[in-house]
Amino acid sequence: MANRGLRCYQVLCAATETGEKMAPTKKGILERLNAGEIVIGDGGFVFALEKRGYVKAGPWTPEATVTHPEAVRQLHREFLRAGANVMQAFTFYASDDKLENRGQTLKITGTQVNEAACDLAREVANEGDALVAGGVCQTPSYLSCKSETEVKAIFKKQLEVFAKKNVDFLIAEYFEHVEEAVWAVEVLKETGKPVAASLCIGPEGDMHGVSPGECAVRLVKAGAQIVGVNCHFDPLTCVKAVKMMKEAVEKAGLKAHYMVQPLAYHTPDCSCQGFIDLPEFPFGLEPRILTRWDMHKYAREAYNAGIRFIGGCCGFEPYHIRAVAEELAPERGFLPAASEKHGNWGAGLEMHTKPWVRARARRDYWENLKPASGRPLCASLSVPDGWGVTRGHADLLQQKEATTKDQLKQLFDRSKTH
Amino acid sequence: MANRGLRCYQVLCAATETGEKMAPTKKGILERLNAGEIVIGDGGFVFALEKRGYVKAGPWTPEATVTHPEAVRQLHREFLRAGANVMQAFTFYASDDKLENRGQTLKITGTQVNEAACDLAREVANEGDALVAGGVCQTPSYLSCKSETEVKAIFKKQLEVFAKKNVDFLIAEYFEHVEEAVWAVEVLKETGKPVAASLCIGPEGDMHGVSPGECAVRLVKAGAQIVGVNCHFDPLTCVKAVKMMKEAVEKAGLKAHYMVQPLAYHTPDCSCQGFIDLPEFPFGLEPRILTRWDMHKYAREAYNAGIRFIGGCCGFEPYHIRAVAEELAPERGFLPAASEKHGNWGAGLEMHTKPWVRARARRDYWENLKPASGRPLCASLSVPDGWGVTRGHADLLQQKEATTKDQLKQLFDRSKTH
Amino acid sequence: MANRGLRCYQVLCAATETGEKMAPTKKGILERLNAGEIVIGDGGFVFALEKRGYVKAGPWTPEATVTHPEAVRQLHREFLRAGANVMQAFTFYASDDKLENRGQTLKITGTQVNEAACDLAREVANEGDALVAGGVCQTPSYLSCKSETEVKAIFKKQLEVFAKKNVDFLIAEYFEHVEEAVWAVEVLKETGKPVAASLCIGPEGDMHGVSPGECAVRLVKAGAQIVGVNCHFDPLTCVKAVKMMKEAVEKAGLKAHYMVQPLAYHTPDCSCQGFIDLPEFPFGLEPRILTRWDMHKYAREAYNAGIRFIGGCCGFEPYHIRAVAEELAPERGFLPAASEKHGNWGAGLEMHTKPWVRARARRDYWENLKPASGRPLCASLSVPDGWGVTRGHADLLQQKEATTKDQLKQLFDRSKTH
Amino acid sequence: MANRGLRCYQVLCAATETGEKMAPTKKGILERLNAGEIVIGDGGFVFALEKRGYVKAGPWTPEATVTHPEAVRQLHREFLRAGANVMQAFTFYASDDKLENRGQTLKITGTQVNEAACDLAREVANEGDALVAGGVCQTPSYLSCKSETEVKAIFKKQLEVFAKKNVDFLIAEYFEHVEEAVWAVEVLKETGKPVAASLCIGPEGDMHGVSPGECAVRLVKAGAQIVGVNCHFDPLTCVKAVKMMKEAVEKAGLKAHYMVQPLAYHTPDCSCQGFIDLPEFPFGLEPRILTRWDMHKYAREAYNAGIRFIGGCCGFEPYHIRAVAEELAPERGFLPAASEKHGNWGAGLEMHTKPWVRARARRDYWENLKPASGRPLCASLSVPDGWGVTRGHADLLQQKEATTKDQLKQLFDRSKTH
Repeated sequence: MANRGLRCYQVLCAATETGEKMAPTKKGILERLNAGEIVIGDGGFVFALEKRGYVKAGPWTPEATVTHPEAVRQLHREFLRAGANVMQAFTFYASDDKLENRGQTLKITGTQVNEAACDLAREVANEGDALVAGGVCQTPSYLSCKSETEVKAIFKKQLEVFAKKNVDFLIAEYFEHVEEAVWAVEVLKETGKPVAASLCIGPEGDMHGVSPGECAVRLVKAGAQIVGVNCHFDPLTCVKAVKMMKEAVEKAGLKAHYMVQPLAYHTPDCSCQGFIDLPEFPFGLEPRILTRWDMHKYAREAYNAGIRFIGGCCGFEPYHIRAVAEELAPERGFLPAASEKHGNWGAGLEMHTKPWVRARARRDYWENLKPASGRPLCASLSVPDGWGVTRGHADLLQQKEATTKDQLKQLFDRSKTH
Repeated sequence: MANRGLRCYQVLCAATETGEKMAPTKKGILERLNAGEIVIGDGGFVFALEKRGYVKAGPWTPEATVTHPEAVRQLHREFLRAGANVMQAFTFYASDDKLENRGQTLKITGTQVNEAACDLAREVANEGDALVAGGVCQTPSYLSCKSETEVKAIFKKQLEVFAKKNVDFLIAEYFEHVEEAVWAVEVLKETGKPVAASLCIGPEGDMHGVSPGECAVRLVKAGAQIVGVNCHFDPLTCVKAVKMMKEAVEKAGLKAHYMVQPLAYHTPDCSCQGFIDLPEFPFGLEPRILTRWDMHKYAREAYNAGIRFIGGCCGFEPYHIRAVAEELAPERGFLPAASEKHGNWGAGLEMHTKPWVRARARRDYWENLKPASGRPLCASLSVPDGWGVTRGHADLLQQKEATTKDQLKQLFDRSKTH
Repeated sequence: MANRGLRCYQVLCAATETGEKMAPTKKGILERLNAGEIVIGDGGFVFALEKRGYVKAGPWTPEATVTHPEAVRQLHREFLRAGANVMQAFTFYASDDKLENRGQTLKITGTQVNEAACDLAREVANEGDALVAGGVCQTPSYLSCKSETEVKAIFKKQLEVFAKKNVDFLIAEYFEHVEEAVWAVEVLKETGKPVAASLCIGPEGDMHGVSPGECAVRLVKAGAQIVGVNCHFDPLTCVKAVKMMKEAVEKAGLKAHYMVQPLAYHTPDCSCQGFIDLPEFPFGLEPRILTRWDMHKYAREAYNAGIRFIGGCCGFEPYHIRAVAEELAPERGFLPAASEKHGNWGAGLEMHTKPWVRARARRDYWENLKPASGRPLCASLSVPDGWGVTRGHADLLQQKEATTKDQLKQLFDRSKTH
Repeated sequence: MANRGLRCYQVLCAATETGEKMAPTKKGILERLNAGEIVIGDGGFVFALEKRGYVKAGPWTPEATVTHPEAVRQLHREFLRAGANVMQAFTFYASDDKLENRGQTLKITGTQVNEAACDLAREVANEGDALVAGGVCQTPSYLSCKSETEVKAIFKKQLEVFAKKNVDFLIAEYFEHVEEAVWAVEVLKETGKPVAASLCIGPEGDMHGVSPGECAVRLVKAGAQIVGVNCHFDPLTCVKAVKMMKEAVEKAGLKAHYMVQPLAYHTPDCSCQGFIDLPEFPFGLEPRILTRWDMHKYAREAYNAGIRFIGGCCGFEPYHIRAVAEELAPERGFLPAASEKHGNWGAGLEMHTKPWVRARARRDYWENLKPASGRPLCASLSVPDGWGVTRGHADLLQQKEATTKDQLKQLFDRSKTH
């Protein structure tokens, strides 16, 4: 990839940080996707803000939108600079039932959290070419077998805020069960806003064994214009699952756009419930973090698979999103603002004093590097936890077998870059 | 470690983010160290801000203090929240000769960068119990054999800003040659402010083969009140080098305080020039990132070695500093503010829905976890680069031999936690 | 497992090495299997004798039966002592077309090689409770598209020797294509002797994509009384393939016995052509060698799968076969002769001088040991070679996907013991 | 290395296996070494015969010379064929005190074992250009603090056999304490036969901390004409220790020849007591086994270090010795007999049917291969056992530190070949 001749996006939006607003005529999410544009998502906020000290692992709730808005705002800005076209309001797990469940003792209501989240997302979206998305995700109510009516009431309450704050589109994401996701889509589509639906599943399907393809068909039929997966698995596994969705949707004679927002962790060894079952979750995942070069490969794979809404979830830092934007710069015609601080494929190293470091300022060096862990007492893979707890042995074997279908494939696919 | 009964520092400084300033009677760095207090440093800014999109790898220069102050301010805040008592002004490589050398084309002078850096550090320091440090580091002028006078002139220019901005103390850091560090100390001590001197060396000594002990003695004789090492090596290697400094200083009948600010990367395989020679530097270091639990071990080792100024350098994120503060909370008597968002030793997981994740909410789980890399096609160690380029074969062998002395030791020392 | 109360086989055959022959009334292979007995096979000769200096890697031909009979005889004896009930005459690749093809310049005919092989196998079989098997394997003639008539003529020529030497049963083994194996079975069954048929395939089936189940059905229909797989994959992969065979044969309403003779190498990363495609084949496979404890797990898995003819192929050394015999000693009622030189589950270490080595004299220690490679610069898995050479990219992806189905499963299955 | 133009040793000794004896005028060990010839040793018998079923791990005693002479004879032959010039009588641990201690209940005396061992070694030595060595090793008597007189009496008893059987020279080997080795040398030299003395120590010295150099000086002064190390450490560590011996002997103005007979296991992680402390000892060492290509590097290193008696110990199989002989064939002027079954640097693969396997028939392929373990759930290094048991913590740290000095060095040295 060469960035010569690319219009640099930073020029287009040079005024952003002085506070001037972009013209109000931004194209909507569907306009962009219908026009064949690539829409770059942001990265996950809970993990990034956990590392920065504003989210507590365990509850993972987003009350920082109220208590520490400057931290949330800054992360939005970094993703914007990195190339993201979507500012997803930080409303993850901000349903009232979740906030109650999770020991949230502050006197902050879900509504306050959601409103503050929308305001912050809008503020930063206005600084560049980004849209604001409001999101809902799986609820404790569904897991505790509450009725469709009760669960939908939860979504409606969050949705009221999104409507009031006039977000640009809606995302129903991080659902392990397609049934609950369909309920969410049914609620969200009542607003008339574009609806994206994203499951946290891999190629093996949802927790009831519904295949990705079947899940996607149900979601599209329920009214989602964009379908895909997020979280729980590494990028190539997620791309694979979305490809299965696309095939099934097309086979069913339906039409949709596709999105993918995977982990920034290598998880070839995880089972169908994803990285949560890995022994390293959530406090020992560091050795699995993708490099920026892994992200180039991911972005290309996603693009080649026909996915046009390409973002990230847990583990993504701004430089990961920038790598996605840089890989796809030839198709998009411009680099993200943050590329002013990044030499293409390590080009910035050309100025290093040591000749052997200067020798690393080239694409093939980084594409072929297989980075060492520096941990010779650690293995390269883990055995996922929890199997024996939740399932009988027979199920377990089936599960493991099914799970592995795509795992080594991606492993080999990735062999060029890490 | 139990945090019951600890006064939570967040209570003490509850007002910080509303902008109220702390009382102006903060204790100085030497007062604290003389009183036996633990002073927690911050983490390195260049790597953290590179990932956030504000520093360019290669030049590594800090003009973001002028162009994106909000990003620099936010990172200061996060380290403060994490427990840091030192806000080091982001003046790394901000000497004029460096800024010129490194292709800096913006019309921003070193003085502007340094002034902005001091203001940002002071602003955030005032929000909590932190001091502002101004720093100088190795110069291109020294490497290109400029005279003592010329090199000292470089330092003096930066120092003018620190004096004008009235920083609380000064750090001469990231020196590969003790000679240049001594010159820096000689300049800095003219201000009358406390001077800390930190070399980027390991147990093998500086690039001319001067041992850590001898280096420390020279620096103390030159007037440094605090000596230690930073960057280039992983925590346990750095602690080892500082122990050697302490022994030599004591043996020489001198007196000093000790500091350590290591990498947040596991580098058992690096040679005497540190992580720069690893093939993964700087864009493939992810698998080497220390977990928070590795940081607990580091903090304890440093404390046990008699080091009282304990911080971080490249690779450190706020949660790494928080881990240092949490490990040393029993000694300090309080937790950092950011611990409100962190269960002790994973305690936050107790609220997780899945029983096998709840089972991870305990210290021995995380202390004994050996995290997998998720990269079965990658090795665990690398062969450092550059040896063959700069040295003859005989030298090379000697170097390798010398280098390894402490490497496997730390490897075994660490075997409990990763 | 306890070996107390086991009749020790070494007592039964104490006279063997003084040369006295066993009574001539040995039970045949089918009598044994029909009676539900476990029949333990020997290990592969080509790899074992290559390491001993008597077989050349590349040609892999067995002229050592003529030139170095003492070496071949000794290996037979070691497998007998280890518990093998089958002395497979060392006739691998000893068809005339192979011997010609492979640059064999000695004036030794295939007939001479095969006759000598039978004599050596019989001599040692007579020293214990073992049967002699004569074997044929895949031919260059088939690969170069010779006709059924021509290929069968090759088999017939070898078979003449087996008939003349009156081997106890016949094995058609190491076939990559079921079609050729069926031809071999058709030839072999004309003798009236029991016929075993073994393919070198994994769960993905033969090189034309015929599934293991379908392969097995065809072989049984062709007249094989015993079917299974050998070589090319590690033990648990091979057991898995044989399970698929068994299911299909039973589903087809047919009846057969089952055999498995896998590699003694861990090959979770190999593709459908097996270990030949691994970059380490054949001179760098050492780090993959199974421990004796891995063999215990293999023997148990095979037994539990209903396989009763359990042996080994490339990489097996006598101690590997002994481990199989020791694991199954409770079922068989006796230990192999060589167990006189082996403490059960490491019990021999009880006499060690160092207390921490004595502490290893227990089953759970060895069952749970995950042995380190001592090679921190090496990865744990490889990318198989040759894919890009023989197949188009689309095929390749399919192949990889298919191949991986069982690979990680076995990886997890094995996680207890290595 | 090219083998064109090399006289093939197999031609010289074509008659060996028909039983004809070589002319009786073989050159003695010192004649050879004085003439600058390379003497190739054999490999260790206890591990090789344990795998073959004739030696029991734990006691490790050699009564197989009496009970299974054919197995011992065959192993001698294989090493002879592989290029060994020394047939070391299999008398390891065959002192009476050891045989008694170790639960040996057979009615076989040490004298019987030693006599049979000498006869077998002589029989095979006569089949080629090899000498017979008789050996003594460390005794339980020394460890239980028996007097010099008592310990020497043990050696003398074994020596009577060696004298009676007229071995060609004597080896005092596998001593952890130089004091006991000196006693052994003093006894052995009384025979007037050449005496070699070999300690099982690494660069850290013997168990009392006597450095390799000092050990060597003492042994030479005691009368040993050849000094070196064997067992306990991997090849490059052993070569390093012998280099230290050579330097010290030369510095002391003494003269000696040097020998090295290391493990065939990679042990970069072992402590000063060697591989016995590794958790994998002795039943899980498989992943550490050196490839033949590792052996090429070892042979070259040993040769370059001025060592001329180059052999092997535990873990060595005949093909390992052959690799040593092949690496040094240019210097010696001939290949070993077993090379008739080995293409130089994999040349035999040129005849393989698959093009990508044929592509491996070249030196640089094998020299650069980093073989995978096939064990993604295992780490690459272990933490040695036993430290905490025998020593206090302070000692422990010192020990670890000292131990590591050469470990990573060899690791890097080896980086080219594995």
